[in-house]
Amino acid sequence: MLPPTSSADQSVPFDDRGLAYGDGLFETVLLRAGKPVLWRYHKERLAQGCHRLGLPLPCQEALDATWQGDPTAEFEVLKVVLTRGSGGRGYAQPDQITPRLLSRRMPFQPSVKRWQEGVTVRLCDLRLARQPRLAGIKHLNRLENVLARQEWNDTAVAEGLLADSEGLVVEATSMNVFWQQAGEVLTPQLDQCGVAGTLRAALLDQGAAAHASLTLHQLADVERLWVANSVQGVWPVTTLLAADGSLLQRWPLSQPDPFQRLAHQLLGVV
Amino acid sequence: MLPPTSSADQSVPFDDRGLAYGDGLFETVLLRAGKPVLWRYHKERLAQGCHRLGLPLPCQEALDATWQGDPTAEFEVLKVVLTRGSGGRGYAQPDQITPRLLSRRMPFQPSVKRWQEGVTVRLCDLRLARQPRLAGIKHLNRLENVLARQEWNDTAVAEGLLADSEGLVVEATSMNVFWQQAGEVLTPQLDQCGVAGTLRAALLDQGAAAHASLTLHQLADVERLWVANSVQGVWPVTTLLAADGSLLQRWPLSQPDPFQRLAHQLLGVV
Repeated sequence: MLPPTSSADQSVPFDDRGLAYGDGLFETVLLRAGKPVLWRYHKERLAQGCHRLGLPLPCQEALDATWQGDPTAEFEVLKVVLTRGSGGRGYAQPDQITPRLLSRRMPFQPSVKRWQEGVTVRLCDLRLARQPRLAGIKHLNRLENVLARQEWNDTAVAEGLLADSEGLVVEATSMNVFWQQAGEVLTPQLDQCGVAGTLRAALLDQGAAAHASLTLHQLADVERLWVANSVQGVWPVTTLLAADGSLLQRWPLSQPDPFQRLAHQLLGVV
Repeated sequence: MLPPTSSADQSVPFDDRGLAYGDGLFETVLLRAGKPVLWRYHKERLAQGCHRLGLPLPCQEALDATWQGDPTAEFEVLKVVLTRGSGGRGYAQPDQITPRLLSRRMPFQPSVKRWQEGVTVRLCDLRLARQPRLAGIKHLNRLENVLARQEWNDTAVAEGLLADSEGLVVEATSMNVFWQQAGEVLTPQLDQCGVAGTLRAALLDQGAAAHASLTLHQLADVERLWVANSVQGVWPVTTLLAADGSLLQRWPLSQPDPFQRLAHQLLGVV
């Protein structure tokens, strides 16, 4: 397989299908001392996304080149974007696809305060549509997340929780959701909508979490609640607000937190 | 309101939110002798899209500049793309939005043969997700259309028909759907999914079509069927295939076709 075109100037032309239709995928990767964390899981999700969209997967060398180079900080965030490249007549793709692989790395500082003190989250009004063909993968069609994130400006609110059109809890706008019930840590299956995070995948692999369903009405009654992703780590939720800002639930900050501890070991941040 | 940034080089940088999230809108406009057809309807849909996404609408002068200039052919297609511009932290938009407006025009030749002889269409397996917050507007999150268009390669099949997750007929991959029942021309309301075309809007305004629901099961029993948009005009459907290629229905090519005639008058192509 040919390596995809790499855009040295980090821009895409007018006819790029990533711009035209969101026809592509992305990954957001934590770099620690210049090395990608959970890289195997990021590559697996990218491969699954390519399979679903009918995109050729970039070769290993091209993917590795996105993070290779001297680190500029202890922690960085690498963003990788893969589009179907240019052309085609309307939605029909060209006979020859030449995907475009772009990347950028930026210094990053995780919020230790949020790890230690927990966060306030709110429910979003927007309901995610159920589209099994796109569920789980990290594709470029993210208007639902953008609209959900527009629902609040209060910097004291760290995340917004999203349910689907059936009222089932799915994710936060840019993180996965985990809750504890009867001592077990659970997370939605994400077979209808949502992005299946790489930290979530690693935690499922470790047996540290299992799939379950949770309705919005059940959310306030869980024993513990967390939001998490592979860049930010795990934030315990201490306050849950309704979309109108009213208080739905408070949880005491519980120590020890073996779920957070294991997750942060997987990220190498403790 | 400030005019949006216009990209003279017709590319967008890595951090453009149109590329990152499909955070934007587009229009595809027929130009006849250098003048946009149904321009008022395109501007209205763009304004509605901006309202839904919380995007500032470009000023009139910037929009008009996308088509002004000497025509290169009797018919051209103008594509206009409006993104939220660069920046922001993740899904959260920047405090100051500077939208990016891009456009390109290309010579175009409508298919007179398809107007006169009709077309074969097929049902798509993909079901559109129901998301009322994004229904009707022409946003940049079009992976469903891309996946649906991947379902066939046979050039004898002109379009694919899409139903939503409830089995209601919505649209074709890049055209709207119209059918005749009891002598009346009908089209789906598109309040759950689908793109509300500008030719469709003009035909509804003229009273030449009305809103109705149609299930996939009822589709083969309609008196007539058409697919249409503001660039291609109106194609009568003469053959309907199932997703597996089997024949579901044939309709004789009916002349006269007052619906097509009126639509083409609106487009000025007859």
